[in-house]
This record gives sequence, C-alpha cells and structure tokens, in this order.
Amino acid sequence: MKVDFYKAGVFKQINITKLLKNFINFNLKVGDVLVGNYTNRKWKYGAMSTNERDIRKESIRLCKEAIDFTAEIPGSKVIIWPAHDGFDYPFQVNYMDGWKNIVESYKELCSYNKKVNIAIEYKSKDPRQKQYISNIGKMMMLINDVNMDNLTGCVDTGHALMANENLAESVALLFMHNKLGAVHLNENYRDADPDLIFGTIAFWENLEMYYYLNKINYGGWCEIDIVSPRDNRIKSINLVVKLVRMYEKLAKGLIEQHVNIIDSNLKKYHFVDNMDLITNILFK
Amino acid sequence: MKVDFYKAGVFKQINITKLLKNFINFNLKVGDVLVGNYTNRKWKYGAMSTNERDIRKESIRLCKEAIDFTAEIPGSKVIIWPAHDGFDYPFQVNYMDGWKNIVESYKELCSYNKKVNIAIEYKSKDPRQKQYISNIGKMMMLINDVNMDNLTGCVDTGHALMANENLAESVALLFMHNKLGAVHLNENYRDADPDLIFGTIAFWENLEMYYYLNKINYGGWCEIDIVSPRDNRIKSINLVVKLVRMYEKLAKGLIEQHVNIIDSNLKKYHFVDNMDLITNILFK
Amino acid sequence: MKVDFYKAGVFKQINITKLLKNFINFNLKVGDVLVGNYTNRKWKYGAMSTNERDIRKESIRLCKEAIDFTAEIPGSKVIIWPAHDGFDYPFQVNYMDGWKNIVESYKELCSYNKKVNIAIEYKSKDPRQKQYISNIGKMMMLINDVNMDNLTGCVDTGHALMANENLAESVALLFMHNKLGAVHLNENYRDADPDLIFGTIAFWENLEMYYYLNKINYGGWCEIDIVSPRDNRIKSINLVVKLVRMYEKLAKGLIEQHVNIIDSNLKKYHFVDNMDLITNILFK
Amino acid sequence: MKVDFYKAGVFKQINITKLLKNFINFNLKVGDVLVGNYTNRKWKYGAMSTNERDIRKESIRLCKEAIDFTAEIPGSKVIIWPAHDGFDYPFQVNYMDGWKNIVESYKELCSYNKKVNIAIEYKSKDPRQKQYISNIGKMMMLINDVNMDNLTGCVDTGHALMANENLAESVALLFMHNKLGAVHLNENYRDADPDLIFGTIAFWENLEMYYYLNKINYGGWCEIDIVSPRDNRIKSINLVVKLVRMYEKLAKGLIEQHVNIIDSNLKKYHFVDNMDLITNILFK
Repeated sequence: MKVDFYKAGVFKQINITKLLKNFINFNLKVGDVLVGNYTNRKWKYGAMSTNERDIRKESIRLCKEAIDFTAEIPGSKVIIWPAHDGFDYPFQVNYMDGWKNIVESYKELCSYNKKVNIAIEYKSKDPRQKQYISNIGKMMMLINDVNMDNLTGCVDTGHALMANENLAESVALLFMHNKLGAVHLNENYRDADPDLIFGTIAFWENLEMYYYLNKINYGGWCEIDIVSPRDNRIKSINLVVKLVRMYEKLAKGLIEQHVNIIDSNLKKYHFVDNMDLITNILFK
Repeated sequence: MKVDFYKAGVFKQINITKLLKNFINFNLKVGDVLVGNYTNRKWKYGAMSTNERDIRKESIRLCKEAIDFTAEIPGSKVIIWPAHDGFDYPFQVNYMDGWKNIVESYKELCSYNKKVNIAIEYKSKDPRQKQYISNIGKMMMLINDVNMDNLTGCVDTGHALMANENLAESVALLFMHNKLGAVHLNENYRDADPDLIFGTIAFWENLEMYYYLNKINYGGWCEIDIVSPRDNRIKSINLVVKLVRMYEKLAKGLIEQHVNIIDSNLKKYHFVDNMDLITNILFK
Repeated sequence: MKVDFYKAGVFKQINITKLLKNFINFNLKVGDVLVGNYTNRKWKYGAMSTNERDIRKESIRLCKEAIDFTAEIPGSKVIIWPAHDGFDYPFQVNYMDGWKNIVESYKELCSYNKKVNIAIEYKSKDPRQKQYISNIGKMMMLINDVNMDNLTGCVDTGHALMANENLAESVALLFMHNKLGAVHLNENYRDADPDLIFGTIAFWENLEMYYYLNKINYGGWCEIDIVSPRDNRIKSINLVVKLVRMYEKLAKGLIEQHVNIIDSNLKKYHFVDNMDLITNILFK
Repeated sequence: MKVDFYKAGVFKQINITKLLKNFINFNLKVGDVLVGNYTNRKWKYGAMSTNERDIRKESIRLCKEAIDFTAEIPGSKVIIWPAHDGFDYPFQVNYMDGWKNIVESYKELCSYNKKVNIAIEYKSKDPRQKQYISNIGKMMMLINDVNMDNLTGCVDTGHALMANENLAESVALLFMHNKLGAVHLNENYRDADPDLIFGTIAFWENLEMYYYLNKINYGGWCEIDIVSPRDNRIKSINLVVKLVRMYEKLAKGLIEQHVNIIDSNLKKYHFVDNMDLITNILFK
C-alpha cells in the first residue's frame, strides 16, 4: 500500500496509533509514503531545484512531515518523484544552479532523520521535456553528490525502459552500491510512460530482472504502478498480479535448477546457449 | 535461400537449367532474388531516386536482369532494398523530385515483366538518416502511386520495430491490400537495426504477428535475416529456427483452440481477458 | 481562429448570420472547425475506428453537424484529430477491422458534402500508444483508400517531428498529391508532443519547411498550436508570432534572391554548398 | 590533431623527439592520443569489461603504452572509447561483473601515471545495443567509482544528443565536478550516431552549449569529429569550421553584451524573454 502525502499539516491531524491498528486489522502494509510536491501549479519550476527560496522551503517542510510520519510506520520509506525538477527549452534554466539546489535539498532531507530511508524515482521526461534525475546514471551521480547513507534509488521499470535501460542492469547497479530502495512495476514501448500493465510487452527483460532480483535476494517492495483507462480495473489488477507471479516463478525456477549453467554462460558471453536453455525450459 | 545479384551481366553467364537442377538436388528453394544496387559508392545518392540519369539507368538495367533471372525460377520474386534512397540533412535534396524518380523507376520495373513480383523492403533510417520509403504507410503510398499489381511490400520485423510499428498491424495492412510480398525475421530495441536473433526481445508482439500470419493463412516466405557477430553462428542459426518454430506453434495452438474467444475479445477490446487467457495457456 | 465543436446539437442553436457578422466586426477569420469527438470517455476506443456501432454513429453525426456549420463559413474546413483511433497492447484490437471502420467512416463523411474539405491531423502516439493514422505515409494510405477529393491531411509540425519526419518532406508529399489541408505549428525533441513554442528547437528544419511553403506558394493556414504552462502566455504568443515571421522572412529572402542556386545544389546533392550559402546570408 | 594508437609495441618504434619537432614545424598540436582497443575482433566482448583476463590485460597494456606516449606530448591526454564494453541481449552478460571489471581497469590505468589525464567518451549504443558507460550520468557514476583525479569525461555532442541529453547541461555537469576532459563536435537527429557535420541540425542547443563553454571559460579542446561520405570532404571541413566559429562568435556576443540579463532570466525561468532577446539580436 502507498500513502500519498499532499498537503502540509495533514500529518499532524492523523492519529498514528489508530492508523497502525487499522493497517493490522485490514492486513495491510505500507510500502511507501509518497510526497505530493508536484500536484499544484506552484511546484511548476521544480520542488527541489527551483531558485524560488520560499517554494523550495515549503517543499522541504512537506517532505520533513512525511519523514516524521514515515518514522512511525515500521518497514516504510519516503518516496519522492521529482516531477517538475527539469527543463523544457534551451536558455530556460541554469543547469549548475539547478543541480546544486537539488543536492542541497536532499542533503537537508537526509540529515533530518538518518533512520528514515528516502528513495528517489528517476525519470527521463514528462512532465518536463528533460528531467535532471533522468536515468540510473544521474540517479547514482546524485547519490554520490549527496553522500548520505539513507538516500536510495527507485527503479520504476517503465521509466527505466523509457530511458532505454536494461531493467536487470539498473537494478543490479543500485544493488551493487547498496542503494536499491524500491522497484515500481509497469511497462511501455520505450518511448513514453503510459504505465501499461506490467508484463505485457518486454517479456525477456522482465524475466531477466526477476532472475536478478531472485539472485540478489531482494527483500524490498515491488510495487505495481499501472494505469488502466480502457480496461476493467479489477480484471486489470488481477491480471498484473498473475503476471508478476508468473515472472517471479519462472525466474525462481531458473535460479533453483539452472543457476550454475546460466551464470557460467554469462561469464563466457554464451548468450545463445542461455537463450536455448531458457526457451527449452519455458516452452517445452 | 536468397540469391544476391550484384553486378550487371552476371546473369547472362549463369546456366539456369543446371542451377535449377542443383537447387532440386540440394533440396533448396529460392525465396528471393535480391538486387545489389547499394554495395558500391556510385549508388550513394539513391539507386532509384537519384537525379543522375546514367546511375538510375544502370540501376534499372541491373534490376531488369534480376527480373529476367527470377522469371526462370518458379516461386521466386525480386527483392529491392532502397538503401541510399533518402537524405541526411535539410537542404540536401528536393523531396518532390526524389519521390517522382522513385515512382517512375518502379513503374518501369513493374511494367517490364508483369508476371514477376517485386517486393520492396522499407526502412526508416540507416544508411541514410531518413529514407524515402520509411515505414508501412510510405510503403502503401508508393504502392498506390506506382499502381501496378506486381509491386508488393516486405515487412522486415526489425525495420518495422525500428519504425515503432506493431508487427501484426503492418503485416495485416499489406495483406488487406493484397500486397504482402515477404516477411523478414530479426529484432532490435526499436531504436536501431542490428538484425538481432528473432524472438529474443519482443515476445508478445512476435507471437501476435504469428497469430495473424496463421489467421490469414500466409503462404509466402518468412526469411531469417540475422547477424550474429559475437556468438557461434551455427548455434545462432539453430536457436533462431527453434524460436521461429516456437512462436509459430504457440500461435497455431491459439488459433486452433481459442480463435473464437480471442477474436471476440478483440472485437470488444477486452485486452485483459485475452492476455489472461494466453498467459494461462502458455505458462500453466 | 479555431472553432471547437464538442456536442451534438450545439450547431443548431447558433445564429450563423450573426456569428459571421461578429467575425467581420472583430476582424477574425475561421481557419478550422475542429470536431471534439475525443473529449469524453465514451470515445475511448476510437470515434472513427470503434466496433461499437452506436458510438461510431454518434461520432459521425457530430462530424456532419460540423460539416453543415463549416459549409456556412467561407474559407473554412473541418479538422478531425483521431485521438483514440489506435491501440495500446498486442492482442487488444483487430487491425483489419479498425482500418476498415476508419475508411468507411471517412467515406461517409466526405460524401456527405463534397464541397467541404476535411483535414485529418495524423499523430503517432498519445493518447493511444500506437495510432492508426500515425504518420505522413499512413495519412496518404488513408487518403488513397477513402479516395475522395475533399479528404486532405494536416501536417502538425510537432506530430511530424515526433514521427521522425522531415517537415519539408511531409509538406511536399501532401502538396504533390494536392492534399495539403493545413499546417499546425509547434515543436518538440522528436520523442513526445508537448506543443512547445514553434521555432525554439529545430531551426534548420523549420527554415527548410518555410522554404518549401514559399516555393509551392502555399495559400492555406499555418495555425499556431502551442501550450505554454510555465511562461507568461501573452509573451509566449508574441514570441511565437515573431518566430514564425522570422522563419517566413528568412525563407522568403532565400527564395527571392537565391532560389536558382539553392535548387541547383539540391539537384546535384551539394548540401555543403547550400549550407555554406545559407549560413553566409543569415549570419554575416 | 588526434593520434590513433592501434597496436601494442608501436610506441616503442617512434622517435618522440623527432615527432615533436615535426609537430612544431607543421604548426600542429596534439589534442588526444586515442587508444584503438576496439578495431580488432578480439575486443568484441569489451576491452575494459571482459571476463577474459588475457584480453583485458592486453588492452590495459596498450593503454599504458598510450599513457607513456602521451606523457611526452605537452598538453595532450589519452582518450578511450569503450566501444564494445556493453551488451546486446538479455541473459548475455552479468552486469555486476562487467561494471566491476571496468572500474578495476580504469583504476589501474589512472594509477599508472597520475600526471596523464584520461578522458572517456561515453556513448549509449553502437556497436553494442546497450553500452555500460551510456550517458553523462553513468560517466559521472564511473568517475565516482574509480575515484581518481586524472579520470575525466568527454562530451561527444552527437553521443549526448543520441542519449537525449541537453548539450549545455552535460558540459556543465562535468565542469561542476572538475571533470570536463574534452568536447567532440558532430550532430544527428537524436536517434543514431552518423557523425553529421556539426551545426546543421540542433541550432539552439549548439548555441547554448557555446554560451556555457564561454561562460565557464573552457580552455580545453573542441575536436571536430565528423564523417562526410556523400559530400566533398574539403568543402565539408571548411563548412564545419565556419559553423563552429559562427556558434562561438554568436555565443561570445551574447556573453559580452547580454550576460547579465540572460542569466537573470535564467534565474527566474523567463525563457520567453531570453528567446525574444536572442532572436532580436541574431536576426535583426
């Protein structure tokens, strides 16, 4: 479950003890607390990168309330999607100021409560034509510049595909640096971010990502993040859960019974042998 | 089998009777005769579109020899890949002259021997930055402008993906107009044309294309057209044949046992039901 | 000026004589009448392509009212943007049915009043992941299949760039076939359709398009179609008008003083000579 | 001038003193020494990332010879283009091993002679379908992981455009981190790397990059790196030099006379005011 956090002050009105009880009663767990610092026109120049001091201050205050809230919810973390932190035209922004502001903002947030993890959801475009934290590399660049243990990255598979990334590589790079904060699941044709039902386009790369998630024993959340404007929504959710389970299970089977041979082929770049093996197993 | 046709005059030196016997002896069939009017620097401005009269004449002569040759080979057709028929920069070509030259060239070729089919392999870029016959729409536009029964289109699945097309749609559109001349099989990440091993990236769209090929009872050639620079080539060929057969078989199964329900879902746009059904069948 | 046409019945309530007087009083001319058959959830499967008979009927009725309205407005035409006529997933639609429905719909519309021109605004994606009438080629394919004199195409420069087209080529191809119905002006980075201020990204291709518009003596509308969510809107409109006039003027200068040398270079593919000449003139 | 370095042992046969004299005699300066560890099939799995120990050793030896050579040439640096360090298919490589190997290799190289700078030319694809060091973010990620002062990045403007980057941003980010090693100049349509003549497509972004290069007082090399297969090569070189000088001069004019107003607009995100100002100046 995801809790959205849109307005400053909302947090103080919530009875946390009662809320946590309700989560238990309904058998719900909170994966993320999402900060909504992008849903109002005032954030249009970027909640974390803007030169407007007051706006940035307000955004940081909102994030800190979300951090306080999250600190009370075991197993949860804060997710920030830097929606408007970017630019659209040449001669619109000073790139150095923008990046400095972002680094400074996240330093302040991560220092505020080092026990609460923050995961940033990188994205290459939309709503801005170019986002600052646009891909897995810029994500790691930011993590290095901020240099705080509790800053992590969130691989949204749709964003990664739109950035022409290989899903397994992006997950593996964050994991190697101990920075894999979350995985969001959806899909597209590598050219936009329509949040299609995960599993319906990039079969082999989805399977490979689950192979890696299994191998690294990923214990974090894989959060379904789809939009289904033209299909029955209940059926859509049932389908996406089924597809996630299917990829998981196929990958698990590969790991449990064939990990040595697959990894040995990877070491020698024997792609054809791997593909042959996997095809034989999946489609006998 | 594909016969490449690179130099004028080559044809006259071939003993066709002997060649056809050899084909039979070795149990080979000729799918295409490919005209090589792109392998020399002289074709650099486009063998069919260039304003250089002599070059265009030479290209047409070469094609006519290929037509004569093909006329002797039962079940075969001429394939033309308009490699250099395009442009790279603004202010480099006159688009109207280019298109007129192309239409005129193909009119002459198609009139030369109406019994021999010609298939054009459309492609959006590479080697030119923009090709004239860049996608399935421009392919049909050309077919309409030339207006000859023996002009058809070739769907190279890699070219179609690079043009952001859906494979099944491109095949279906040519079929509807009675213009599906050939299918070439390879793959990529929709952004370039590396001729990857067919079947290894776009699983669902490959499967859907075979669903349509089965449904329309396509009797033409599906020609494997891959490059394998870093893998064992024999293993690569074995793998791609296995993958083609797998997609074919899965699609055939869907057609034979579930065509009514799938088609009924298509009619009502019940995508989720279709995906659920197909997933259940493939991955029980 | 553009008149949007969203609801059936609206037309009948309008006093045309009075309206036309007002246009004259305020010195306004109507370029287009745009049919709004995409602003309601009921159109979600495609107003012109859907298998839902009633929905398609309703859409056609709305279009016919727009045609009636347009018939009263001298110098105007109907514009249709086939927003939802497309698909998102493999196994979601039957491509042959979709195309047949589209052709049939436009045949009916064009036959309804042959004196009123209809221009279709092709687009490759968004809101659907893949649109049926996705690029200049498919536009011409549709025009050929419908085969009515009053069906034309609208080149939206942003859509053309997003489809990786060269603007001048798309304009020229429609013009050659006597089918250039309208030009819409906006811009992007070739990967999405944010309707950026025309003139701010693709300088050389914009200039080349105006070179062709001048050369073919285009007498139709060039309609500014931008969105400016983060800039002062009045300043944005002033800027885009200034930029349009600048491109127009530069192109006109090239035509008036250098058309022979530029065209001669185009004939011989002497791109470098053209670029050198144009650079010398623009940036002395 | 660029010196290519293709074979181990070549260096030892060169009389450096004589060579340096010749450079002076012919008024040439060496910008880069380029290591050719990509021109032979043996490098096909990646000269810096491969698991084949002997191959990687050989590549490193070659680079070290280039470092030794470069150490003798004042004002020069080593450039490495990691051509084959990437992958093509899912299940072809282990991403963690690949990245570790790369980091290890560059650590060894940078430690070998800390006085010689090494610049890596990042690229997103081609010849591999996905490269490890694919964009400015991954470039900075590598720089952070290697953590040596003499490792820098090279912004090839064509590679940056193909990775959907803004040129000025990529230059600015490396500069901010004191890591801007070199700039290569060429161009494309953001979808491939044909090394087109710099200056002929992305006018505004080229201009903006030169605005930043002027502002940061960049003292390094801007190296023309184009391919001109269909134009007169001497004319092509003359044109590209003219275009480079033109962008330089226009940017210099903006800096010298309008830097305060432009920067103030950047601070407030008044893009429209900037574009208006610049248009007025360039095209009066």
